[in-house]
Amino acid sequence: MLKINPDLDKIEISAIRKIAEACKEHQNGEKELINLTIGEPDIPAPKEIIDGTIEYIKTGKLGYPQLGGIVELREEISKFYKEKYKVDVSPDEIIVTVGSTEGLSTVIKTVILPGDEVITALPFYPGYEPLIVLAGAKLIKVDTSKTEFQLTVESLKRNLTEKTKAIILNYPSNPSGVIISKKNRDEILKFAKSNNLYIISDEVYSEIIFENEHNSFLTNDYRDNVILINGFSKSHSLTGWRIGYIISSTKLRNSLIKVHQYTVTAPSIISQRGALIASKKCRDISEVVDVYKERARVVCDKLEARGVYPIKPKGAIYIFLSLDEITDLSSLEFAKKLLEEEKVAVVPGIAFGMDNYIRISLVKDKDILSEGVERILKFLKK
Amino acid sequence: MLKINPDLDKIEISAIRKIAEACKEHQNGEKELINLTIGEPDIPAPKEIIDGTIEYIKTGKLGYPQLGGIVELREEISKFYKEKYKVDVSPDEIIVTVGSTEGLSTVIKTVILPGDEVITALPFYPGYEPLIVLAGAKLIKVDTSKTEFQLTVESLKRNLTEKTKAIILNYPSNPSGVIISKKNRDEILKFAKSNNLYIISDEVYSEIIFENEHNSFLTNDYRDNVILINGFSKSHSLTGWRIGYIISSTKLRNSLIKVHQYTVTAPSIISQRGALIASKKCRDISEVVDVYKERARVVCDKLEARGVYPIKPKGAIYIFLSLDEITDLSSLEFAKKLLEEEKVAVVPGIAFGMDNYIRISLVKDKDILSEGVERILKFLKK
Repeated sequence: MLKINPDLDKIEISAIRKIAEACKEHQNGEKELINLTIGEPDIPAPKEIIDGTIEYIKTGKLGYPQLGGIVELREEISKFYKEKYKVDVSPDEIIVTVGSTEGLSTVIKTVILPGDEVITALPFYPGYEPLIVLAGAKLIKVDTSKTEFQLTVESLKRNLTEKTKAIILNYPSNPSGVIISKKNRDEILKFAKSNNLYIISDEVYSEIIFENEHNSFLTNDYRDNVILINGFSKSHSLTGWRIGYIISSTKLRNSLIKVHQYTVTAPSIISQRGALIASKKCRDISEVVDVYKERARVVCDKLEARGVYPIKPKGAIYIFLSLDEITDLSSLEFAKKLLEEEKVAVVPGIAFGMDNYIRISLVKDKDILSEGVERILKFLKK
Repeated sequence: MLKINPDLDKIEISAIRKIAEACKEHQNGEKELINLTIGEPDIPAPKEIIDGTIEYIKTGKLGYPQLGGIVELREEISKFYKEKYKVDVSPDEIIVTVGSTEGLSTVIKTVILPGDEVITALPFYPGYEPLIVLAGAKLIKVDTSKTEFQLTVESLKRNLTEKTKAIILNYPSNPSGVIISKKNRDEILKFAKSNNLYIISDEVYSEIIFENEHNSFLTNDYRDNVILINGFSKSHSLTGWRIGYIISSTKLRNSLIKVHQYTVTAPSIISQRGALIASKKCRDISEVVDVYKERARVVCDKLEARGVYPIKPKGAIYIFLSLDEITDLSSLEFAKKLLEEEKVAVVPGIAFGMDNYIRISLVKDKDILSEGVERILKFLKK
C-alpha cells in the first residue's frame, strides 16, 4: 500500500464498538444475550420529535443548512444555557455538529498542535486519545480513583509541563457516573486560566443527573478558556441522528467553523430540525432521568446485597464496577468469559484505561438489567 | 486567544459560500435577485425518497448505524458499480460518509502527510485546498485551459516531484462541466501506478452527463491507487441530507474507517435510509439530467447568439464563462458589480483559481436562467 498517515497504526477502532460487534456472534444461542455494552439509550426519542421531524420533511425544505447550524436551533441552545445555567451564550458562539464526536474532532483539530500535551482523567472516554494522537499530541492520563474519580487541581499541577495545552473533561463521567464538585470545577477553571490552558468540557451527559447538580464548566467567566461539547444523543435518545454542538468564544468559533465546514459542511438538516424540536418542546426529560436513576438503583442494590460495591453513579447511564475484590482476570478476559458463559456483554475497563473495572450500561429495562446482574453474580461465584 | 492551529490563518470560509451569504443583502430590493451561485439543485428530491424516509422514521429504528454505513446501502452501491460501471466493489470496500465533503476530508487526513504535494487541475473545486493545507501539504495547480480543461499526463509529468503523493481529480468538472476522455483517464491511471501515486477522484457529478460517457477512474485495475469519492447531493438533490461515500481498496479502508469513526462516528441513519431508497428505487435520473441539459443549452444558445462563448458543459450543473473578450474587471469585481447593478449572483472564477472566468449555476428554472443571462448581457453592454 502507498504510504499513509503513520499515526493511524497507533489507533484502533473503539474497543466498545468492537465488543458490541462481537456480541452479534452470541445473538442466536439458546440463552438470550443481554447486551450492556454500547451507551445507546433504549428509551425511544420523544414522539414530538419524530412527528415534528416528519412534518418538517414534508415541507421539502431540505437544502444545505446555514453555515454553523440553523439559526433557530442556535437560538434555542442559547436560551437554554441562559435559563438553566445562567450563562450568556450568543447564537454566534455555537456551532451545530455531527454529534458530539464531530464537535470533539473539530475542537481538537483546531486547538491541539503536534507536540502538545492534553491532560485528562483516568478512566477516560475512549474517543479522546485517537483524536489527540492524530493531532500529533499526547494524552496524559491522571488517575482519579483515589480522588473519588474527580480530577483535582493537585493532580493537574503534578502533570503540568511546558507542553500542556488543554484539559479534556467529561462530567458527568462516562464510565464512572461521577459529577464534578463545584469546588473542583472552580479550582480547575482558575488553574486553566492562570496557566493559559484550554478546557475542553465534554458534557454530553449533563441532563442525566440523579443526585446533586451538574456543574458545567461553561460559566460567564473563563469564556476564552472553555470549549463546551454537548449533544442530543443521550438526553433525547437521538444517537443515530448525529447531532451535537460546540460552544466557544466568538473569536475561537471563527477558527472552529473553518475546520467544521471543510470536514463535514454541516450536519443533516433533518437532524437539525429534530434537535430544534428537542430544544423547543422536549427540554424536560425528568421522566427519562427517573428511568435511568431507578435502573442504577436496582443494579447497585442487587450487587451490594451480595457484597459487591460499584461506584454509585450521580449521573450518566453507566455503572463502573471494580474487579479488585472479585477476580484476578483482566477486564478483557472477564468480559469475554462473561459473554461466553453467561451471555452478558459488558465493556472491559481497559477501554477506559482501567483494567480492573468493567462498565455496565443502563440501556435495558430494569428486569433485563436485574437478570444481567444475576448472571454476573452467578459468574462470580464460579 | 490561546494558540491555535496556525494553518487556519491560511484558509478561509469558501468564497462560494461567502457570496451566497452576501446575496441575502440583495434579496429584498425592487428587482428580484437571481441567485446562480451555490451548486444546490432546485429540483426536489424524488418523492419516493421523501415518502420512504418518512415511513422508515416511523419504525423508530434510529440508533447508531453500523460502522462504515448500513450494509444494505453498501450492497446497493456495490451493485450499482457492477451494473453501470462493470467494476467489482465489495460492500466492505465502501464507507458511507457525511456527504462527499467528509469523504474528501477523511481521505486526505488518511493519505496526505505534511510536506506532500498533491496535483490538481486548475480550475479546481475550492474545497480541496483547505484540507490539503490543514494536512500540512501543498496543492499544485496545473492550468488545463490549454488542454480543453482536462488534466493530461504531459502536464502531470511536468509537475511531478519527489514529494508528489496524489492527484485530485473532479470530472465531470465543477466548474467547467468537462468530462475526462477515456484516453486521458487511462494514461493518468498508468502514470499514477508507475509513479506510486494516489488518485483521489471526486466524481460527485458522475450521474449528470449530457454528452459522451462518464469515464470513472474506478476500474477493476489500479484499485490500490484509486480512491473514489461520490455522493447523493447532486444526483438526487439530497444536499441537506449530507450523504456520500468513499470506495477504496479493502486495505486502505481499514485505515480510512478509523479516521471516519473518530471524526463523525457515522452519517445520520435517516440520511442513510434516504440514500438507500435513492440507490434502490431512484437510480434512473434521466429526467433530471434532461432538465440540466436543456438549461445548459438555453444559457449557451443565448450567450452565443450575442457572440459570447462559454465552455459547453458535457456534464455537471454549471456554465464556466471566460471574461477575456468581455471585460477588464477581475472576476470578483465583475461578480460584485453584476450583483449590485443587475441583481444576478454568480461565482467569481477566482474561487476556482481562475480570475478571468465566472461560474453560472444551472440551479434555476430555464425561464429564470434566461432572464439571468439577459441581465448579464445587458450588464456587458454597459
